[in-house]
Amino acid sequence: MANSRSGDSLLSRLVTILDAFGSHRSSMTISTLSRRVGMPLATTHRLVLQLLDERLLERDADGEVRLGIRLWELASRGSRTTDLREIALPFMEDVQAVVQQHTTLSLLDSENVLYIERLTTRGSAVNITQIAGRLPIHACSSGLVLLAYSPPEFQDDVLGRELVRYTEHTVTEPAALRRLLAGIRQLGHASVPGIIVPDTTGIAVPVFERGDRVIAALNVIVPFGEEDLRATVPALKTAAHGISRALGADRPRGGTSRMPRAV
Amino acid sequence: MANSRSGDSLLSRLVTILDAFGSHRSSMTISTLSRRVGMPLATTHRLVLQLLDERLLERDADGEVRLGIRLWELASRGSRTTDLREIALPFMEDVQAVVQQHTTLSLLDSENVLYIERLTTRGSAVNITQIAGRLPIHACSSGLVLLAYSPPEFQDDVLGRELVRYTEHTVTEPAALRRLLAGIRQLGHASVPGIIVPDTTGIAVPVFERGDRVIAALNVIVPFGEEDLRATVPALKTAAHGISRALGADRPRGGTSRMPRAV
Repeated sequence: MANSRSGDSLLSRLVTILDAFGSHRSSMTISTLSRRVGMPLATTHRLVLQLLDERLLERDADGEVRLGIRLWELASRGSRTTDLREIALPFMEDVQAVVQQHTTLSLLDSENVLYIERLTTRGSAVNITQIAGRLPIHACSSGLVLLAYSPPEFQDDVLGRELVRYTEHTVTEPAALRRLLAGIRQLGHASVPGIIVPDTTGIAVPVFERGDRVIAALNVIVPFGEEDLRATVPALKTAAHGISRALGADRPRGGTSRMPRAV
Repeated sequence: MANSRSGDSLLSRLVTILDAFGSHRSSMTISTLSRRVGMPLATTHRLVLQLLDERLLERDADGEVRLGIRLWELASRGSRTTDLREIALPFMEDVQAVVQQHTTLSLLDSENVLYIERLTTRGSAVNITQIAGRLPIHACSSGLVLLAYSPPEFQDDVLGRELVRYTEHTVTEPAALRRLLAGIRQLGHASVPGIIVPDTTGIAVPVFERGDRVIAALNVIVPFGEEDLRATVPALKTAAHGISRALGADRPRGGTSRMPRAV
C-alpha cells in the first residue's frame, strides 16, 4: 500500500481522519480537521474526498464534514457489539427500573474498557462514560471486574505498568490491586467509590459467554454515599445471569459468595 | 489512490470487504470472504492484512476474521446515529411499555430506510427489521412516513421508478401512492397492513429536528388484526413529540388531525 512520506499507510491515514471525529465534535471544516490530525491541508482534502466518495464521511448543511451513516452501517450490521448490546438491552432496562441509576455495559478492548451501551437516569450521579468511549481498566469498577476475570498473564502485564492515580481512592500499587482483584473474584462483583471521579461509586458484575469466559461487565453508577449494595448487587447479578444465559454460557457464575456483605 | 485492474480504488475495495460481513455471517475464513466479494484470494488476503493491522477486522478464536470492535468504535463515537438513538431510547421504551409490540427507529439514507434501533417484544409479530438493516422506502410504514415528509422533488424521483410489489398490499402505482402520502401527512401517521410481509401491520409517525425537518420515523410492528390505532397512534405521537423536543425541534407537529380515526 502506498505510504506517505511519514511512512503511514493510506489506510492508517484514513483511520486517523475518521478517528478525529470522535469525542465531542460531530462535524468540522476540512481546515479544522487538517489541524486536528496534523496533516497538510492538501493531503487532508484529498483523503476527505476519498472518504466522501465512499460515504464514510458526508457533508452537512453548512458544508462541514462529519461521519457518514454508511460508516455506522458498515460497522454495526455484522458486529458482535450490536448483537451483544441488543441481547443485553432488555436486561439493562430491568436493572435500571429496579436500581434507578445509570446502567452501562462494557467490554475489554486493547487494554481499555470500551462502553458499548449506557442507560442514563436523570438526576443521578455524574456519568463520565459515553457510548463508544473508553476508560482505563484499573480506574473503573467495570475494568476491575474485567481484569479480575482475565488470564493471569494479562493481569501481570497490567499490574507491571505505571498506573495513573486519578483520585485518592485509585488503587495503583500492585500488591493492593491483586488483593482487590481476588476480593472481586470471591464476591463476584466490584464496588469501588470514586476511583476516577470523586462523588460516584461504580458497582459492576461479570457477564459470561459460552465456555465460561467473561465477555462483558454490567455496571451501575451511583452517587457516593447512596450505595445500597444489598439491593444493587443481586439486581446486577440477576440481569448478568440473564444476559449470560442468552449468550449461551454453560453455567453463569456469580462468584463464590452469592450475596454481598452488608456495608 | 492506487486503483486495481478493475478500476476500483483501494478504499472502495476495503469497503467492499467490510461490507461482506454484514447481514448474517459475523465471521468467516479469508477464502469464503474471497468468494463472497469476488476478488482473487491473494488480493483479499492482502486487503484483510491491512484491515487487521488497523484493527478494523480481527481474528476470532478459530482463526476466522470478523469486524473489529475498533471499527464500531470509530463509527459510533462521533456519530449522530449514536446521539439520536441515545436520545430516542427512553421514549422508545415508553412506547414499548404501553403498546407492548416491537418498536423501531429509522432514518432515510440513500433512498432506503435504515433502522438504527429496535426493541423487540417476545411473542409479538414477525419482525424483519434489524439494527443497521435496510428496507425499501415504499414498502414499510416508516419509509412511507419519511417519504410523505420529504421534499417534492425526492418524492417525484421515487415515484418515477419501478417499485417492487412485495405483497398484494404494496402500493406501487404513482397516483395511489401520492394519495397514500397525502393521507399520511394529513393524519400525521402511517398505518399499513402487510406491504412487505403478510400478517404484520406497521404503524409509524415522524420525528422532527430543529428547523421542523423530519429526521426519523418511530414505528411499531403489530400482528395483523391486532392493531389498536386508537391506543397506538397517540402513544407513538407522544413519544415522537418527546424525541423531537429533545432534539430541539421548534414546535413538533403530529399532522393536521391529532387523533386517529377509529378503524
